[in-house]
Amino acid sequence: MTRIAPPKMRLGTCYYPEHWPEDMWADDARRMAEAGLTRVRIGEFAWSRIEPAPGNFNWGWLDRAIAALHDAGLGIILGTPTATPPKWLCDQMPDMFAVDADGRPRGFGSRRHYCFSHAGYRAQAARITRAVAERYGNHPAVVMWQTDNEYGCHDTVLSYSEAARDAFRVWLAHRYGTADALNTAWGNAFWSMDYRSFDEVELPHLTVTEANPAHWFAFRRFSSDQVLSFDKAQIDILREASPGRDVMHNAMGFVTEYDHHALGAQLDLVMWDSYPLGFLEMFPFDEADKHAFVRQGHPDIAGFHHDLYRGCGKAGRWGVIEQQPGPVNWARHNPAPLPGMVRLWTLEAMAHGAELVSYFRWRQAPFAQEQMHAGLLRPDSAPAAGFADVKSAAADIDTLGDVGGSVKEAALVFSYDAEWVTATQPQGEGLSALWAAFHTYTALREAGINVDIVPPTADLTGYRLVAIPCLPIVPGALAAGLQNFSGQVIIGPRSGSRTAELSIPPSLPPGPLQTVFPAAVARSESLRPGTIHRGTGWTATRWLDHLETTAEAELIADDGQVVSWRHGAVRYCAAWPEGALIAQLVRRAAKDAGLQVTAMPQGVRIRRTERYVFAVNYANAERVITLPGEPVVGSPTIGPAGVTVFPRSTNRN
Amino acid sequence: MTRIAPPKMRLGTCYYPEHWPEDMWADDARRMAEAGLTRVRIGEFAWSRIEPAPGNFNWGWLDRAIAALHDAGLGIILGTPTATPPKWLCDQMPDMFAVDADGRPRGFGSRRHYCFSHAGYRAQAARITRAVAERYGNHPAVVMWQTDNEYGCHDTVLSYSEAARDAFRVWLAHRYGTADALNTAWGNAFWSMDYRSFDEVELPHLTVTEANPAHWFAFRRFSSDQVLSFDKAQIDILREASPGRDVMHNAMGFVTEYDHHALGAQLDLVMWDSYPLGFLEMFPFDEADKHAFVRQGHPDIAGFHHDLYRGCGKAGRWGVIEQQPGPVNWARHNPAPLPGMVRLWTLEAMAHGAELVSYFRWRQAPFAQEQMHAGLLRPDSAPAAGFADVKSAAADIDTLGDVGGSVKEAALVFSYDAEWVTATQPQGEGLSALWAAFHTYTALREAGINVDIVPPTADLTGYRLVAIPCLPIVPGALAAGLQNFSGQVIIGPRSGSRTAELSIPPSLPPGPLQTVFPAAVARSESLRPGTIHRGTGWTATRWLDHLETTAEAELIADDGQVVSWRHGAVRYCAAWPEGALIAQLVRRAAKDAGLQVTAMPQGVRIRRTERYVFAVNYANAERVITLPGEPVVGSPTIGPAGVTVFPRSTNRN
Amino acid sequence: MTRIAPPKMRLGTCYYPEHWPEDMWADDARRMAEAGLTRVRIGEFAWSRIEPAPGNFNWGWLDRAIAALHDAGLGIILGTPTATPPKWLCDQMPDMFAVDADGRPRGFGSRRHYCFSHAGYRAQAARITRAVAERYGNHPAVVMWQTDNEYGCHDTVLSYSEAARDAFRVWLAHRYGTADALNTAWGNAFWSMDYRSFDEVELPHLTVTEANPAHWFAFRRFSSDQVLSFDKAQIDILREASPGRDVMHNAMGFVTEYDHHALGAQLDLVMWDSYPLGFLEMFPFDEADKHAFVRQGHPDIAGFHHDLYRGCGKAGRWGVIEQQPGPVNWARHNPAPLPGMVRLWTLEAMAHGAELVSYFRWRQAPFAQEQMHAGLLRPDSAPAAGFADVKSAAADIDTLGDVGGSVKEAALVFSYDAEWVTATQPQGEGLSALWAAFHTYTALREAGINVDIVPPTADLTGYRLVAIPCLPIVPGALAAGLQNFSGQVIIGPRSGSRTAELSIPPSLPPGPLQTVFPAAVARSESLRPGTIHRGTGWTATRWLDHLETTAEAELIADDGQVVSWRHGAVRYCAAWPEGALIAQLVRRAAKDAGLQVTAMPQGVRIRRTERYVFAVNYANAERVITLPGEPVVGSPTIGPAGVTVFPRSTNRN
Repeated sequence: MTRIAPPKMRLGTCYYPEHWPEDMWADDARRMAEAGLTRVRIGEFAWSRIEPAPGNFNWGWLDRAIAALHDAGLGIILGTPTATPPKWLCDQMPDMFAVDADGRPRGFGSRRHYCFSHAGYRAQAARITRAVAERYGNHPAVVMWQTDNEYGCHDTVLSYSEAARDAFRVWLAHRYGTADALNTAWGNAFWSMDYRSFDEVELPHLTVTEANPAHWFAFRRFSSDQVLSFDKAQIDILREASPGRDVMHNAMGFVTEYDHHALGAQLDLVMWDSYPLGFLEMFPFDEADKHAFVRQGHPDIAGFHHDLYRGCGKAGRWGVIEQQPGPVNWARHNPAPLPGMVRLWTLEAMAHGAELVSYFRWRQAPFAQEQMHAGLLRPDSAPAAGFADVKSAAADIDTLGDVGGSVKEAALVFSYDAEWVTATQPQGEGLSALWAAFHTYTALREAGINVDIVPPTADLTGYRLVAIPCLPIVPGALAAGLQNFSGQVIIGPRSGSRTAELSIPPSLPPGPLQTVFPAAVARSESLRPGTIHRGTGWTATRWLDHLETTAEAELIADDGQVVSWRHGAVRYCAAWPEGALIAQLVRRAAKDAGLQVTAMPQGVRIRRTERYVFAVNYANAERVITLPGEPVVGSPTIGPAGVTVFPRSTNRN
Repeated sequence: MTRIAPPKMRLGTCYYPEHWPEDMWADDARRMAEAGLTRVRIGEFAWSRIEPAPGNFNWGWLDRAIAALHDAGLGIILGTPTATPPKWLCDQMPDMFAVDADGRPRGFGSRRHYCFSHAGYRAQAARITRAVAERYGNHPAVVMWQTDNEYGCHDTVLSYSEAARDAFRVWLAHRYGTADALNTAWGNAFWSMDYRSFDEVELPHLTVTEANPAHWFAFRRFSSDQVLSFDKAQIDILREASPGRDVMHNAMGFVTEYDHHALGAQLDLVMWDSYPLGFLEMFPFDEADKHAFVRQGHPDIAGFHHDLYRGCGKAGRWGVIEQQPGPVNWARHNPAPLPGMVRLWTLEAMAHGAELVSYFRWRQAPFAQEQMHAGLLRPDSAPAAGFADVKSAAADIDTLGDVGGSVKEAALVFSYDAEWVTATQPQGEGLSALWAAFHTYTALREAGINVDIVPPTADLTGYRLVAIPCLPIVPGALAAGLQNFSGQVIIGPRSGSRTAELSIPPSLPPGPLQTVFPAAVARSESLRPGTIHRGTGWTATRWLDHLETTAEAELIADDGQVVSWRHGAVRYCAAWPEGALIAQLVRRAAKDAGLQVTAMPQGVRIRRTERYVFAVNYANAERVITLPGEPVVGSPTIGPAGVTVFPRSTNRN
Repeated sequence: MTRIAPPKMRLGTCYYPEHWPEDMWADDARRMAEAGLTRVRIGEFAWSRIEPAPGNFNWGWLDRAIAALHDAGLGIILGTPTATPPKWLCDQMPDMFAVDADGRPRGFGSRRHYCFSHAGYRAQAARITRAVAERYGNHPAVVMWQTDNEYGCHDTVLSYSEAARDAFRVWLAHRYGTADALNTAWGNAFWSMDYRSFDEVELPHLTVTEANPAHWFAFRRFSSDQVLSFDKAQIDILREASPGRDVMHNAMGFVTEYDHHALGAQLDLVMWDSYPLGFLEMFPFDEADKHAFVRQGHPDIAGFHHDLYRGCGKAGRWGVIEQQPGPVNWARHNPAPLPGMVRLWTLEAMAHGAELVSYFRWRQAPFAQEQMHAGLLRPDSAPAAGFADVKSAAADIDTLGDVGGSVKEAALVFSYDAEWVTATQPQGEGLSALWAAFHTYTALREAGINVDIVPPTADLTGYRLVAIPCLPIVPGALAAGLQNFSGQVIIGPRSGSRTAELSIPPSLPPGPLQTVFPAAVARSESLRPGTIHRGTGWTATRWLDHLETTAEAELIADDGQVVSWRHGAVRYCAAWPEGALIAQLVRRAAKDAGLQVTAMPQGVRIRRTERYVFAVNYANAERVITLPGEPVVGSPTIGPAGVTVFPRSTNRN
């Protein structure tokens, strides 16, 4: 048993023995192993089969399933089944459900039907976790644990239940001490919102017009904390009952309702669930990209999350525990990946330093909610289209072996509370700190630069470029770190614009960043689509910060509007960091930082490790990429969904 | 008294004596008769005037109204008033309302404010039905009954009340016997959704994410059954108390929430309510058609429903009980029909074999919800614009007399559960079995082919072509029927893709249809608008089934994607059956079937009866149609809203 | 103390001493006075600071704040704080909240969290009003009162609470006397909607389909009356306790849920809150205008409301109590005004006869809901961008002095119940009497014509042109007035189309207007976008009234459709009054009326007073306006956001 990540990336799959006749298990396990898989995740939705009636445990089937998988040499990642409490448990505590913003309980019938603040459910979750952990905690097949499943999926972090309200009041009392302190912190003199005691505070929904943004922001902080403490309770039980095993959780794509950095700090590692086609369809990519990448996913979806979750995991440990292997069932439209995409996604994860890529799911289920979600096998057990990709990827992984450590170039600073600020107080429709980060990430990757997405408290040593796309609340540590930082810095709009209690800093924005950038934002405006300040090769859109500053104007629009400023090594982007504007600033800063800028052909991305440079082609056409050395995998001409891996010379490339 | 349909189509109107002073009734009746009307529907919303207080009946006014109409020679179609229970009754049983999917009771103040599952309301509905039937059941003026009014209007089939929940549990117990059987049928091992007893089952709404589609599907089946049994209770009373009269119900356009084939089986005939302009505006026609046919309606709206409801009625008996006579009040925009359209709609119904066309309503009411809904008369009793059309149509009907029986060419298979499957599990936004049927119907009619829309259990003898646009659940009878069928067959995507319990067949789709088409659908994908596989004169969009098959590829897109396959007389359309693609397949199959293909000029449709070929022009411009023989009505050059009727030679034309 | 409006327009601001440390008050007051402000509004949201616990008053801070402002020579407009009841009060009466149309209470946490029908809250509102009035009613600094704040803001007029339902029943009993009378008035025989007593009547929401429009209309009338009586209770207390002071209320932009004419009749004057940029973004202006005027606001937003509220105020007294001074926080996008716009808006109000323009707010608050709403000062107390505009406007006002009285040219008739009719019964999506009025107003102002927006009961003497864009309910007084009117008249569609109980008049529309225009509307249709009848330089869209009339057809579309009719001095516009069509009719009628038509350059508006002609330029480019005389302010070439004021010769110009 070891907690050290393997030098070579592993493959795995997600399996549900409870869905299939027992006589299929051994053959399934054998086929998994033959395909090159060494890990299998099970159990995370099986509560009703483990405990079909209160206190009546049925371990036999799970004992035998684990044995069958173990016999084939597979290491098991065992999930606590708390995302799917059985109906009998819900009937015992009908108030355990989360309540939506309209006041409706979110009842039984699918999954995640619980409120993180319900003490009764917390006790039940601890009880079943302990039961599973005690039964299998020392089983030699069990190599890792997963807590619950996909916290936040289906918008389940924010709950408006009575349990949540009561817990919020306790949380507030702990944070503020007195109602007067809360009134002052939130500015409750405004609109006579003063409270005389914490018992007067309600949840911020269903108000006549918007509630105080400080109220919403506190509720978001509280809600994130509830996820963390729910999770921590399971971790503590698992560590006690299953010593030597890693504990992880499976995070999702574009989910920001709880603080993943804080989650990562209490786990051994963070994994995530990668569904590039579904994400492309469901998230606000522009229509041209949705068309161009319909069977590939936008080229930065996987990379962004790889680099984000690597920054969440302890010592950079992370993996993909659910990898899309074919069409899914849950997007508005559900196309199939291009042939080769499953291999591409697998090797791209390797390039970003994953220790595991596990496909969801082994076999497509013919029943229930996900019957149209592909597996590696079809419902009739024949190999599905993605299966060949997996075998091909397994061979490539054998060829490549250990990719070596990470290569530090640019750090992109993102914090979850940044997104909570822009969600609470967008000031202009569609403005989001997360998407500012995503677009800045794209600009960096299109310039061929390695990115680490880091929290504001990260050590910046070793980076040549730091981008802070939109960080309203700047911790003192970051401001201090930047003062000692010798590389280039790009600060985006709204950064430093809020105190920790969501008010405007007395010195005006960028507040704490004034120590590295001498300016006050005198006025900000948000702009409707179509209101454009044009420059040479770029446009300023969506947001404008008007600065009083001694910095030098760097980019000036044709109409005289200053769009970016420069003060030594620090740039301030006054419009929304997107498209050609942030690309322009990234290229300027990278050049000043001495970073090599490699303009990527459309759809191509490269990623450097200590031993290799990986190039992947998300375009639906051939691309040529020329780098020094003879490719170890593939060739300089890369077909759609193709991957080429160059050796990395000691000279940077 | 006879139940035999008249050889010549009748005309009628819908009249509300309770809305007008008693001294207007006799004159109204006289003017109806003079206009050529012989039927008048009354009474279906009059409960509060029949029984103004509990048990306090006021028959006098209705006795006199019936007498006045009878005196003018009109046959009366009497409605049971159960669609509009009075306020006093609702106050007696405040839980009788249906509940919407958000949990809100749908209260008094308009109509259809009852839940089909409420036992108390069922008793009240039976009581008032019996009272009306006993008073007028043997009245010589009463020639037909209508049960209730427009089941399903305003989305009233699915109710989430406690009454519905309790009845659903009983229905489930009857269907599945044990909770374990239900768990197995639905695949409830997935996400720990197992039930220990039927009392644990909730309705499938307000779950955190989608409920099990099998759960939703069962709820839809149950909800349809509740409509049927509610209706059957009235039929039984009416047949007992009013022997020799027909009982019908007025179905609607594009309503699929209950099984109209099953309803038709328990009634004597089915009628429907035809509002082509309102339907064009409110349903998902494309914008170009909404523009081109804004004052006509799409040319297949009326025909589709005529052919659908003829297939629902016993022995093909059907009629139009409500025909739009001018602008309506309920669409987003409410234009007036072109001059002549009311005549066109009337004669088109005759071409499809209607036994009655009845206009809604006689006189426009100056008050309440429908005050902007046109009648044959204006509120000031002057003739409204549609009135002249009716008189003109009456003259044409006299000219034509008996049109003769139906001419069998193509059968289009549609089932209501097909639509429930695609509504429950669209897998791609906007995919609907009903609209697949509609678009296939258009392709057939644009080729000049007569269509019968039939249930999957229909006898296919005599047809030359069978189209199955999208039929997920294929009954054994259909598979068997197709094995013995000698004509051409077109199978559309998703057909045979589900078992009766909404899971994927073990042999993969098309499941039971594999007996006539040797294939397995290895993978399906849904495509966003803009993802297009282009062929020669057609495009494949929205859906792709990827087949493993020994069939011959027939249509292949420029990119190599096979879009349709052919195995002997059976074709499989692997993309969504719409537009030029299904038109291409229909023309190929029709040619192979020996059917005459007549390409319709834009907006023109023809329909053959034993004695005539009717041609109608929905275009907003003149069209020329050349068929053998001298027109009996009109001429080969047909103006907008024009109708031309050719005699039908014994040689097919 | 005087109630007479000053000959020269005053300036003021809105100030919240409770938001700032007491040691800032005196300096703030000094800076206000130095900037040329003479009025300051305070107190309207301060309940929780005035009465922090039940019955526990804390007057000290307010005493001192008033003293500080008074010491600087400022006159105080004191608000009753009833728009923001404190939490302790809400907790005493949890049923005091309004309830939304979905049945959800609209709780504490922002503002306006009360139901106008709640008797308990009415008593509390009277109690706090009396307390404030008794304390400060005779204070020499207090020159005016404001009742509550922005009735109707955040959709707060219509409440579906039990209190509202009970009060509605009482209101109905008062209006109709008996349930039978109500049944007859509403046409409740339709769909068995008869009531046996007023206790059976529910509120019209949450019905299965639309409730009777007469029911909705009565509920709207009732809801307006509740606002009026709530307001009247405060007026009575204020007049008693604070003799000699004016009482006003601050109305809003595009709010129509209560009858502002009736409100104006009980107040001393009406003021309004002018936010042109926010209104442009949030209301249905077309995209081209939203783009062209993004930093100016549509050129008719301010003028329309100035002319509307002048017609609501007693003797034409009105003002702007909240003027946007920079970006706001509440629109979808929140740009900054062009430099100069705050001055333009100020002088434009002067041109329309305002007695006060007061900027909202003095200093931007760094906390709570409006922290992104600009003030005259920034949060750090430095002058914000708008401050210079105010000082510049103050100088212009000194230059101009008394502008003289109003110049009568055109009257535009608008009534609030007209909008209630079109909102209740639009018959075509997006049709609104308010917007018909707005578009007709634009046509008049683009022709350089002064407009008074007047209620239907107004005296029309002195006007040369009367436009009635859409007035479904025509009071007898208006019909009589028009018979004696010697100028030109334009009647728009749907005018005279409804009785006072929302039914169609027996003689058909235009009902009472048939005395001046001999016609009956035989049929009306609403048209979807894209259905267009084209004429020469105009198009007829959205609506068509088909008339039987002896009038002369004036505008006829290329397809023969008559779009406007003329009978002597009266024109009838049969299509929706918008764009080039209403512009055409306005120009024809103005010419016939002998009014001078001055075609405005894009974005320019002029307004004549007895002494001046003001020209303002909303365009984002220079414009030239040539009028007789040498400008007193500005020059004939007017830059963006520029204002030029010409002297007015005795010859009309």
